[in-house]
Amino acid sequence: MNDKNLQYILASRPVGWVEERNFRLVESAIPVPKDGEVLVRNHYLSLDPYMRGRMNEARSYAPPAVVGEVMLGGTAGEIVASRHPQFAVGDKVIGRLGWQLYAVSDGTGLSKVDTGKFPLSTYLGVLGMPGVTAWIGLFDFCVPKPDETVVVTAACGAVGSVVGQLAKIHGCRAVGIAGGAAKCRYVVDELGFDACIDYKAGNLWSDLKAATPQRIDCLFENVGGEIFDTLLGRMNAHSRIALCGMIAQYNSAPYPMKNIASLLVNRVRLQGFIVTELLPRWPAALTDLSTYVVAGRIKYRETVADGLTQAPSAFIGMLQGQNFGKQLVRLI
Amino acid sequence: MNDKNLQYILASRPVGWVEERNFRLVESAIPVPKDGEVLVRNHYLSLDPYMRGRMNEARSYAPPAVVGEVMLGGTAGEIVASRHPQFAVGDKVIGRLGWQLYAVSDGTGLSKVDTGKFPLSTYLGVLGMPGVTAWIGLFDFCVPKPDETVVVTAACGAVGSVVGQLAKIHGCRAVGIAGGAAKCRYVVDELGFDACIDYKAGNLWSDLKAATPQRIDCLFENVGGEIFDTLLGRMNAHSRIALCGMIAQYNSAPYPMKNIASLLVNRVRLQGFIVTELLPRWPAALTDLSTYVVAGRIKYRETVADGLTQAPSAFIGMLQGQNFGKQLVRLI
Repeated sequence: MNDKNLQYILASRPVGWVEERNFRLVESAIPVPKDGEVLVRNHYLSLDPYMRGRMNEARSYAPPAVVGEVMLGGTAGEIVASRHPQFAVGDKVIGRLGWQLYAVSDGTGLSKVDTGKFPLSTYLGVLGMPGVTAWIGLFDFCVPKPDETVVVTAACGAVGSVVGQLAKIHGCRAVGIAGGAAKCRYVVDELGFDACIDYKAGNLWSDLKAATPQRIDCLFENVGGEIFDTLLGRMNAHSRIALCGMIAQYNSAPYPMKNIASLLVNRVRLQGFIVTELLPRWPAALTDLSTYVVAGRIKYRETVADGLTQAPSAFIGMLQGQNFGKQLVRLI
Repeated sequence: MNDKNLQYILASRPVGWVEERNFRLVESAIPVPKDGEVLVRNHYLSLDPYMRGRMNEARSYAPPAVVGEVMLGGTAGEIVASRHPQFAVGDKVIGRLGWQLYAVSDGTGLSKVDTGKFPLSTYLGVLGMPGVTAWIGLFDFCVPKPDETVVVTAACGAVGSVVGQLAKIHGCRAVGIAGGAAKCRYVVDELGFDACIDYKAGNLWSDLKAATPQRIDCLFENVGGEIFDTLLGRMNAHSRIALCGMIAQYNSAPYPMKNIASLLVNRVRLQGFIVTELLPRWPAALTDLSTYVVAGRIKYRETVADGLTQAPSAFIGMLQGQNFGKQLVRLI
């Protein structure tokens, strides 16, 4: 057990790509819980694309991260001291305690999880926010019917990998878009998608046409930019788009989209969404997801960086698409 | 009564702007109805923006108009000969009989209308396809709540003018976008919108901010292009867009849209739609609309070109925004 706390502070807002100097590592005393509080030792930090948006000052769906304060993020850890009636030492909890080893909490946003059945880290991935994002976006907003074609971008990521597997379970044709041959092999051979297009191969449009003979009925969009624009040109009449992320342009000027008329011509329904606003749907999603994980019908992979000091480089790598599945930082 | 039929044939597909030479006027014998058919003398031809899309060969929501055949379009007219049990001479009917004085029909798509209460032409406008488009787009897809801000583009047109008046009846703030000071005065002074922005004045963004202090909750989009892109930058969290038309780019290359990320950031729901696919909703819409027209709560204006030979120039003028309200061609 460390005798000091380590924290990453947001040192400055990035302009374009995130750089390591946007974060500053600081050492501080381990905080002491007051009455009604707990002390948590974080075991895993979750790294997620949405964090890039929170590093900006612009108006968005949530308040921005604050320069000079601990960088925000989801965490999984263990109660190591408790003056709170609902938490005991040894309880495993997930929460949003940020980029640090220790944190005090009054219990707000802290949930106990059962690590008897699933490893602690899964509650940040397939059985956590990314898995629930996949489930809600697919079933509530794409609303696929069996035999329809579901396309998901960032298909190798924590969200996309679950989207395609859920689509297959639902009887759909699942087509992924990912960057690189290795990712595409994983998506098809291990996750069981029907096809995966390596957009870096340079033939996105022709490869897309070949992989979607019946066009696209459901698009689960994580990437935005030129890939999204290309996919819009392949939508079916009365198709649906769950707009979940636009990672391609989090670090650059917006891509000038040319195929927006497809939304009209094809009478598309598009829904932008943020999973944390949809809490009533989480229990149903988690019931489904845990059932499928136990049955081996949903597989997942984690890319784990070792130690808090690796968090900035792992985060930058994830924004560049270097991860397979869920990107984590192990803190113990 | 003419002793010949006059018809406009689609002579060629336009490249960019429609030109008069894309249409060819031909004279032919008045057709003779066979058993089970009627002969209709058209009194009004409806000119609508969607026709521009149908002049292209591209895949769209409906088959394209055919080169060498009568140009398609909605019509209102009178039965002048009948060998059909459900239609009698003198019945007034609306249908889709195209750019011509006379047409034979087996009754498919032909509806009798009551001209005792409303003039025949209104069944092509406020009590026809444009009015129903406004009603369905607003109430089924924008789903405004009282006190929300509804913005509609092409606010002076046959659809937009009804959208804003319905929004006011529903207790919303109604803001129009139109081209020119005269249109904006009409929209505010006669139709009762709360505000109207003349996009030709060159201050769209600052005028928009001033006219929408609470941002935009509902956008009824008829125009597309740069105006749509600008409006996207003003959407509220959880706002809704009814995507009805994109007239700004029917005659040109697509405008490169830069504000698509707003759909994600603001968790927007967008629905592209075509009113002719939504027939089950027409009766409710028409009941509402006729009630409001009778009560004087919905006003409408018609721009009427005189004679079939004026149809091409009137159509081109409408695509350029020269009309106030519903653009018609009087054929009698």
